[in-house]
Amino acid sequence: MQKLKVSIIGSTGYAGKELVKILMNHQKVELVHLVSSSYAGKNIAEIFPEFLNKLDKKLINLDLELVAQNSDLVFTALPHTISMDVVPEFLKKGVKVVDLSADYRIKDPAVYQEWYKKELNQISKGLLPEAVYGLPEIYLDKIKDALLVANPGCYPTSVILGITPLLKYHFVEPEGIIIDSKSGTSGAGKKLSLGLHFTECNENFKAYKVVRHNHIPEVEQELSFIYFGGNDNKYQETGIKVSFTPHLIPINRGILSTCYLSLKGSKKEEEVLEIYQKYYQEAPFVRIFEPPNLPEVKFVAGTNYCDIGFSIDERVGKIKVISVIDNLLKGAAGQAVQNMNIMSGFSETCGLV
Amino acid sequence: MQKLKVSIIGSTGYAGKELVKILMNHQKVELVHLVSSSYAGKNIAEIFPEFLNKLDKKLINLDLELVAQNSDLVFTALPHTISMDVVPEFLKKGVKVVDLSADYRIKDPAVYQEWYKKELNQISKGLLPEAVYGLPEIYLDKIKDALLVANPGCYPTSVILGITPLLKYHFVEPEGIIIDSKSGTSGAGKKLSLGLHFTECNENFKAYKVVRHNHIPEVEQELSFIYFGGNDNKYQETGIKVSFTPHLIPINRGILSTCYLSLKGSKKEEEVLEIYQKYYQEAPFVRIFEPPNLPEVKFVAGTNYCDIGFSIDERVGKIKVISVIDNLLKGAAGQAVQNMNIMSGFSETCGLV
Amino acid sequence: MQKLKVSIIGSTGYAGKELVKILMNHQKVELVHLVSSSYAGKNIAEIFPEFLNKLDKKLINLDLELVAQNSDLVFTALPHTISMDVVPEFLKKGVKVVDLSADYRIKDPAVYQEWYKKELNQISKGLLPEAVYGLPEIYLDKIKDALLVANPGCYPTSVILGITPLLKYHFVEPEGIIIDSKSGTSGAGKKLSLGLHFTECNENFKAYKVVRHNHIPEVEQELSFIYFGGNDNKYQETGIKVSFTPHLIPINRGILSTCYLSLKGSKKEEEVLEIYQKYYQEAPFVRIFEPPNLPEVKFVAGTNYCDIGFSIDERVGKIKVISVIDNLLKGAAGQAVQNMNIMSGFSETCGLV
Amino acid sequence: MQKLKVSIIGSTGYAGKELVKILMNHQKVELVHLVSSSYAGKNIAEIFPEFLNKLDKKLINLDLELVAQNSDLVFTALPHTISMDVVPEFLKKGVKVVDLSADYRIKDPAVYQEWYKKELNQISKGLLPEAVYGLPEIYLDKIKDALLVANPGCYPTSVILGITPLLKYHFVEPEGIIIDSKSGTSGAGKKLSLGLHFTECNENFKAYKVVRHNHIPEVEQELSFIYFGGNDNKYQETGIKVSFTPHLIPINRGILSTCYLSLKGSKKEEEVLEIYQKYYQEAPFVRIFEPPNLPEVKFVAGTNYCDIGFSIDERVGKIKVISVIDNLLKGAAGQAVQNMNIMSGFSETCGLV
Repeated sequence: MQKLKVSIIGSTGYAGKELVKILMNHQKVELVHLVSSSYAGKNIAEIFPEFLNKLDKKLINLDLELVAQNSDLVFTALPHTISMDVVPEFLKKGVKVVDLSADYRIKDPAVYQEWYKKELNQISKGLLPEAVYGLPEIYLDKIKDALLVANPGCYPTSVILGITPLLKYHFVEPEGIIIDSKSGTSGAGKKLSLGLHFTECNENFKAYKVVRHNHIPEVEQELSFIYFGGNDNKYQETGIKVSFTPHLIPINRGILSTCYLSLKGSKKEEEVLEIYQKYYQEAPFVRIFEPPNLPEVKFVAGTNYCDIGFSIDERVGKIKVISVIDNLLKGAAGQAVQNMNIMSGFSETCGLV
Repeated sequence: MQKLKVSIIGSTGYAGKELVKILMNHQKVELVHLVSSSYAGKNIAEIFPEFLNKLDKKLINLDLELVAQNSDLVFTALPHTISMDVVPEFLKKGVKVVDLSADYRIKDPAVYQEWYKKELNQISKGLLPEAVYGLPEIYLDKIKDALLVANPGCYPTSVILGITPLLKYHFVEPEGIIIDSKSGTSGAGKKLSLGLHFTECNENFKAYKVVRHNHIPEVEQELSFIYFGGNDNKYQETGIKVSFTPHLIPINRGILSTCYLSLKGSKKEEEVLEIYQKYYQEAPFVRIFEPPNLPEVKFVAGTNYCDIGFSIDERVGKIKVISVIDNLLKGAAGQAVQNMNIMSGFSETCGLV
Repeated sequence: MQKLKVSIIGSTGYAGKELVKILMNHQKVELVHLVSSSYAGKNIAEIFPEFLNKLDKKLINLDLELVAQNSDLVFTALPHTISMDVVPEFLKKGVKVVDLSADYRIKDPAVYQEWYKKELNQISKGLLPEAVYGLPEIYLDKIKDALLVANPGCYPTSVILGITPLLKYHFVEPEGIIIDSKSGTSGAGKKLSLGLHFTECNENFKAYKVVRHNHIPEVEQELSFIYFGGNDNKYQETGIKVSFTPHLIPINRGILSTCYLSLKGSKKEEEVLEIYQKYYQEAPFVRIFEPPNLPEVKFVAGTNYCDIGFSIDERVGKIKVISVIDNLLKGAAGQAVQNMNIMSGFSETCGLV
Repeated sequence: MQKLKVSIIGSTGYAGKELVKILMNHQKVELVHLVSSSYAGKNIAEIFPEFLNKLDKKLINLDLELVAQNSDLVFTALPHTISMDVVPEFLKKGVKVVDLSADYRIKDPAVYQEWYKKELNQISKGLLPEAVYGLPEIYLDKIKDALLVANPGCYPTSVILGITPLLKYHFVEPEGIIIDSKSGTSGAGKKLSLGLHFTECNENFKAYKVVRHNHIPEVEQELSFIYFGGNDNKYQETGIKVSFTPHLIPINRGILSTCYLSLKGSKKEEEVLEIYQKYYQEAPFVRIFEPPNLPEVKFVAGTNYCDIGFSIDERVGKIKVISVIDNLLKGAAGQAVQNMNIMSGFSETCGLV
């Protein structure tokens, strides 16, 4: 069987490294080019000794012609606002793209500009209608035919998967949603900063970007689509608004989101459990916990699972949902490969379990 | 000057140990008896080598007569539902008590029984009217004359101090309050359990007791008093109800509570800052952060401070308050000594800075 | 192809759980019985939610007849001095055994008794001559034909692999060997103790069992065989003696051993590198680092590799060897499966990369 | 009483910050100037919110005239090879100096140059004879009269204190000393590097600078003085040489050094204990542990103590010494204040307990 030829643009960041780890063992993939502007010229095992004796491959600078020519699909793991300069080039040359940046996640370019402080370029705006938000548990069919998948953010993945059934079945009010998320440090990437220096971060816990974290528009867009239906960009005025607070946990990997929603009328645990199980019955990477069991970060660290539990707080008419993922896998590289599998007609779980 | 003679009942738990550390250096205190049922007969420096060359004192079993006779004031750092058997004995013998358990915090014995699953004994019920909830920033005057102070819980301290000004000045709605708290592991005490085994707890993050953590009634009682005024126990039916979720952070010390409240009308940052600064102007251990600065756990670890910051989320009409304390100090032993200072006419900060 | 039928005795300890994780995905293995005296009757996914949707298997009490009847090979992951009561029963019934305890590692029963404070039972003494010390990099051929493999200890694996080439080629003196080892907490197992309570262990570092850690005789036996040749038990009087100190690192997984040896005459880095590369040229799980590169714990965590680096300290005529492994994999479960692969004629790396 | 006027040059590094914390509460000290080239112009509480409400002081650029004029003593917490440009200026103006760099620790300028890769400037060479190595447990009398104290390195403090009695009383051979040290991350300072990025450092353990860590000459100089007597710089050719390996522990604070020495003849535990107790009988910050007790990092974290324990390994004729300190206190700022106390005629422990 012909293998899918795959390259990675940005292969030495935390998400990129995970992509390499998954894809080097993926039976249906031939890993062709590893692009890294920081370490071009070196062997990947020089940068990450973990790969010694396992992967012998030189990192290269981005040569669009070369990479496009040799690849059926590329993963672009570049910073937001940078990706948009590269992605269209690959698509033009007939190469499918799974983009891990935020550049193609937001349907309304004005919203993108408002939150990311840069205008999406013209060609990328034109790509938005065909770009598919890569959450397979919701957009499976669209992903199958997609040429460009916008891989979701880590926090949004945990939140959207966590509460979609409640919104879909209108079990909860669309107003007043509170999302309190906590992430391990790898979510902040490899860029050095005093706040991520070991001595500063260790034995600490803090909230950050409490007002306007740029994962908010993505969460609100998708929750609005789910609750109100449709897929247009009307959600801005009339859509769901969430109060979102991210926090930094002194651990390497994992996100736990605690979501607080107001139940419409009184609901029994079994009813809630039922809609969750129903909604995710075909989803191989979502596991629903029966109350009073709740997921913990360590259950999913190193895996592509999203584990979800909930608890009804009758005293106040709220439901709390706890959703956990590995931010680098289901929150980035794992989900990206899951999307690639679907786009390529492979089993959804191939290389991921 | 005659020193205050002080003994500690339960001096080898985490809070007890902190009490010893503070009191051994307190200029106005003579540390008389250290009671520990677990380690009676041993020198405290055998149990905690940190005390070598610093404190040479034998741990004893609880001998009420002896301890009462030699003490002006005792700290009872015993488990909930156990303290009630000891506290009245000391009071009867004219010894003042700062009780670190929950037994005298809840004004309504029925509520206590509902949440702690044990009936308060008769004599303790009789003590409730005179027991003072030991949050000096709110009950300073009452504490001055108190014979029995019920030292607040760790989570309640962070939460109540964090949002009291907003409720006091009716800047926020009393409904729909969400409190998402995170604590270091020392808050769970020294009792061994698999969940607190290093290998299980490290690199993990989880919510626990999501439905009915027994710090809830204490928080609701005090917030109701603040918002509705008065100090009776009517609050149960008509009072404030909060949605509270505690989480476990893999660090030793510190609590961060993220509180979400609905603003009544639109408020400016300066207005909010003003009521906080006004409310706490005389409080030596509360520090208010000006937006956009926010407190972090490490700013207060090892201190008796409660650091508070906030952020107005105009998009959703909410205010988020971040409140941090050291759970063993402002959340337990430090606050207990602060109470002792006030009860004894010492400077409030003596031994604590 | 007929799969190898395998059962695990002791499947809910840390090593046992790793065995389950590896074997459930091993293409040539059918995982038959999971024995756990602690959790018999429960499904393994109830104990470890990580297995949800992945492995649906009930834990059972040890039923020797049943397990033996259905298994070609068993892994016994039982405590030292307990294993000896079980292993001979399986062998008697024709079931091969990979034993993860120390019971069959020491060739001289008197030495075993001295260090483990219990006499090896008679039948087990009789098994010693045929028991093979399961370090495949040294005993590959013997393991191929073994019915009983004594899987090495975690510290010994790191140490023996780390310095064997130096001793084999007589590059170093056999006297005065110093081994300073550091291990993550999972090496101490799941048994609760205050020293492994998160709050006690976190932000701490300590040496333990500094005088007589029971991994010493195993290290000395094997190093003596390597240096002096042969495989008898004369080594006790005349053999190599090491000074060994284990320390506890507040991390979950990994061992780093720093070994100090006296060079015989002056040696160049290239000469040392050459003997290491030569000795391990056929070993798929040993990676030699060229100076000045040195291995770190994170390079091997989660893998079956042993990474080895060295540095010649000319000023004092010493060579320092740094050897790292994952204590639960190459130091326990991974190596056990490696042994199973060899005993069964599978590829040595099957299921392990 | 007139307070000692003290300034700190380099007050926002980790050691500098500890100096501020100690000195702001020191009863006999007036903290005058806080110099910080990185944060000049800001209030220290802006940089470290821990100081809010406690210390209100502006950080300034180094103005030698100004600082010298207002200070009786300065602490120079500057990088190696930088300090030498500043220290002589203060001395010239009659200001005493406690220098935390390595610039005045090494008696032989050639050795300094060899290890620090820079020549000591001429004026500093001239200061070497009067510079006192600031280990009060050894050089108490000299420190009393010193104008310039070279505050010891963190590793050397743990090592020299740990084994001095053994060398002093010739209980051990001066050859073949092995020192395996482990340090928390604050020892590496605040300078950002990928190796100290939380995600890289957490759950890892590694050796570093295994060949030529620049604390070696300092250790060898002092151990040679102790063993051979005298205080000249002949030790280079004939003196003690140690094999030293530092490792990085993923904790914030603390050093544990494991030292291996060869006993001269057989020694009993009591004999060894006796010389340790005798040697340190007047030392308020050294605590000797009786076997089999051993110190742990957490016993000294946050204190100025050096805790020392030992174990005789009769099987191999070695003694192992375990010595622990807080690298920022006894290993830096605490010891510096201890030196200041002695130089100023204060109680040695003032401000430090």
